[in-house]
Amino acid sequence: MDVVNIQEKFDLFQEQWSPKVIGELNGQQVLLAKVQGEFVFHKHDHEDELFMVMKGQLKLELRDRTVVINPGEFFTVPRGVEHKPVAEEETHLLLFEPLSTKHTGDVQADITKETYERI
Amino acid sequence: MDVVNIQEKFDLFQEQWSPKVIGELNGQQVLLAKVQGEFVFHKHDHEDELFMVMKGQLKLELRDRTVVINPGEFFTVPRGVEHKPVAEEETHLLLFEPLSTKHTGDVQADITKETYERI
Repeated sequence: MDVVNIQEKFDLFQEQWSPKVIGELNGQQVLLAKVQGEFVFHKHDHEDELFMVMKGQLKLELRDRTVVINPGEFFTVPRGVEHKPVAEEETHLLLFEPLSTKHTGDVQADITKETYERI
Repeated sequence: MDVVNIQEKFDLFQEQWSPKVIGELNGQQVLLAKVQGEFVFHKHDHEDELFMVMKGQLKLELRDRTVVINPGEFFTVPRGVEHKPVAEEETHLLLFEPLSTKHTGDVQADITKETYERI
């Protein structure tokens, strides 16, 4: 039961594509991630996933369009919808999703993290 | 499935202590609220509630201490814990909580909103 300062948490890690847990409530988790480059197309069959951009710019490629998310904006990918995060510059994200959500969903890739560190 | 710009949503309303729904996922809702002054002490028996400060400062009085939340910070009130939001200046909040969460929890007050508008 402490106040969480989001920027202080971002300062604790540099690794990209490796979400860190900074909060947990109602079976959901709040994650931070630093991303740059291209992720893999994947989907989560049972989890909606919220991407909030804190810095930089996230492009979420969907199969039929690309969604551009700037700082101060968020987008929710509904369960079952394939998406591929892409960021040209290093981009800082806050994610909100169920504890059960797998990093790369239905896809297993080199980039896949099996567990997330809590910071 | 649209990108949500948080500041643009804040610009759509002026009413204080009247949360507006700006997102919904996994049985949870994302709310915005403008608050100033004192709310009432209340608790939610079955819902954890996340308060993120976007502007201003929120003091959350608990029964044994007061938590101060500044912009870029959040605090999660666990289910069952009595809390009373207080803000000296107008403060802008982003809340994350289950859809089932009642505005003033176990307390019925003049300030209580039975439903939240979606904006």
